[in-house]
Amino acid sequence: MIHATRSNDPVLIVGSMAFDDLELPTTNAKDVVGGSATYAALSAALFAPARVVAVVGDDFPSSAVELLAARGIETSGIERAAGKTFRWAGRYAKNLTSRTTLDTQLNVFADFRPKLPDAFRASPYLLLGNIHPSLQLEVLAQVERPKLVAADTMNFWISGERPTLLEMLKKIDTLVINDEELRQLAEEHNVKKAAAIVRAMGPKRLVVKRGEYGAMLFDDHGIFFAPAYPLEEEIDPTGAGDTFAGALMGYLSREGSLDRSSLRKGLMVAATVASFCVEGVGTERLAALDREQVARRLEDLRGLVHFGKE
Amino acid sequence: MIHATRSNDPVLIVGSMAFDDLELPTTNAKDVVGGSATYAALSAALFAPARVVAVVGDDFPSSAVELLAARGIETSGIERAAGKTFRWAGRYAKNLTSRTTLDTQLNVFADFRPKLPDAFRASPYLLLGNIHPSLQLEVLAQVERPKLVAADTMNFWISGERPTLLEMLKKIDTLVINDEELRQLAEEHNVKKAAAIVRAMGPKRLVVKRGEYGAMLFDDHGIFFAPAYPLEEEIDPTGAGDTFAGALMGYLSREGSLDRSSLRKGLMVAATVASFCVEGVGTERLAALDREQVARRLEDLRGLVHFGKE
Repeated sequence: MIHATRSNDPVLIVGSMAFDDLELPTTNAKDVVGGSATYAALSAALFAPARVVAVVGDDFPSSAVELLAARGIETSGIERAAGKTFRWAGRYAKNLTSRTTLDTQLNVFADFRPKLPDAFRASPYLLLGNIHPSLQLEVLAQVERPKLVAADTMNFWISGERPTLLEMLKKIDTLVINDEELRQLAEEHNVKKAAAIVRAMGPKRLVVKRGEYGAMLFDDHGIFFAPAYPLEEEIDPTGAGDTFAGALMGYLSREGSLDRSSLRKGLMVAATVASFCVEGVGTERLAALDREQVARRLEDLRGLVHFGKE
Repeated sequence: MIHATRSNDPVLIVGSMAFDDLELPTTNAKDVVGGSATYAALSAALFAPARVVAVVGDDFPSSAVELLAARGIETSGIERAAGKTFRWAGRYAKNLTSRTTLDTQLNVFADFRPKLPDAFRASPYLLLGNIHPSLQLEVLAQVERPKLVAADTMNFWISGERPTLLEMLKKIDTLVINDEELRQLAEEHNVKKAAAIVRAMGPKRLVVKRGEYGAMLFDDHGIFFAPAYPLEEEIDPTGAGDTFAGALMGYLSREGSLDRSSLRKGLMVAATVASFCVEGVGTERLAALDREQVARRLEDLRGLVHFGKE
C-alpha cells in the first residue's frame, strides 16, 4: 500500500521547534527536542523530501539539527536566533488521557516571523503547524500556489484569535484538528454537524484526530474512519498529532494524488506512523523508523477493519 | 451482507423490562417502555426468532407485550407479578455523553428469579442481559448446551458483586461491555491489556462498546474495529448497548456461523442497528425498523472504513 515514489514533491513544514520537559507515567525526561515542526518533518520525511522553516535559540544543539538532516530533511530554513529556544513543560495523567501544562517559555519563538528561503516558495505541499494564525497567514503570503495546504491549530487560537483564524481557514484546503477543537471551533457538539460547519468556513477537507479512538476524514467523498493502532505500551503521546499531520502530507506527496483512495490510505498511514510516535519518549521512536516497519504495521491496521473472508 | 436465513435458531434473551422516565436534551418522556430485554429482543428479532424471559408488574400494559409479539417475539416467558414494574428515571447531559440516574425503583424486579419455560431450555443462542450475576448463573443452570452464550454487565455488579460475576464469566463465551466497564473489571486502563485480562477470566470473545467511537471485538482472530455510524440527530441513547448486543446475537443466529467473518460482520450490523435506536425516544425507532433499512445503512457504514478504489 506504500508505493514506490510516484512524485518527488517537497513538503514544506512551518512550525515550532522546542525543548520539552515531560513528566510521563513511566519516566521523566528533560530537554527533549520537540515542537510541531520536528515531529511533522520526521514523519513526512519517511515518504517525501521535507523542508522546515522554524526558529531555535543559541542553546539548541547542532546535533539535533543534524539528526533531522540525517533523515534527509532540508534544514536551511531553521533560523538560529539569539536567546533561548521555546520550552514547554507538561505533566501527563497516569493513563495518558490528559495533560497539564506546567510551564511555557516562548523565548525566541515570541518574535518568530517565518521567512521562507526563495527556494522554498514553490513547495507543492505545505503544512502549517500549530502556530499563531497570523504567522500562518504570513507563510501563505509567501508561497506560490501549492497543490495542497494543510494547517493545524489549537484551542488557544480558537478562543483567543478567532477572527484571524477564520481568515486563515479561508485560504487552506485541509484542516487537521482534534475532536475537542473541532467542537470548540464549530460551537457544536455533534461531530457530523460540526464538520459541516467548519468545512463551510473554508477548508474543503477536515481531518479530525481522536487519539486512541482513531481519526476521521470529512470531504466531498463523505466520511472516512481510520482506527487507531491499539498499543500495548503507550509511553509518550507528545507530538503524535503533529506526526499524524506530517505523515499524511508526506504520503500524499509520495502518491502524487489527492483522489479519494489516496486520501483515505493517507489517513491509515498517518494513524500508523502516529502509533510509533507514542511508543517512545519524544522523537526517539520516529527517528529510528523506516518505511518497512510502517508498511508492516499498516497491514495490521488494515486487518482491524477487515471483515471479509481471511 | 445480510443473507437470507441460513439458520432458524432462536435467541433467548433474559433481562429487564421497565418503565423509563427520560429527561433528554430535546424532550422529556415519561413511562417509556424500556429495559435491556425489550431493546435486545426487538433488535434480535430483526434477524432471528427471539424469546424473552423477564418480569413485569400488573401496571404493565398488555399492548406493550403485544407490540413485541407483533414483531414475532415469543413473549410467553414474560412473567406478570403482583406489584409495580421496574422503573428507572434519568437525566442526560446536553451533549448526551453522560447521564445521571434520578431514581431507581426495582419493584417486582427485586424478587425476580428467572424461570425458563421448558420449551426455552434448548435455546441455541442465549443473551444474558445486564441483571445480577447470580441471576445470570441461575439462567445458565437451566439451559441445555447453547451454541453461544453472551452476557452484559455493568459497573454496579463489577464493584459490588465481583466474586459472583467472576464465577459467571467462567461460564460464558462472549462478554459485551462498554470501555469504562472493561477498564474497571480488568483494573487496567490500556484497552489491549485490559481485554487480555478479561479474556483470561473466561469469555473467549470480548465485545467492547465505545459509544460514538464504535465497538471492538477481541478474540482468537485478533482485534476488529467497527465504527459507529455518525448520526446528525441523536435523540436518546437509552438501550443502544442492549440493542447492539441483541442485534449481534440475532445476526449470528441468522448466519448460523461463528467464524471470523460472521463475527466481524455481526459487529458492523450491531453498530448499524444501535445507531437507529439512538434516533428515537425509547424503542420507537427500533419498533418500526426493517432489515431493508438496516441493510442500506450498513452499506454506508462499510463505506466509512473502505479505502480502496470506488
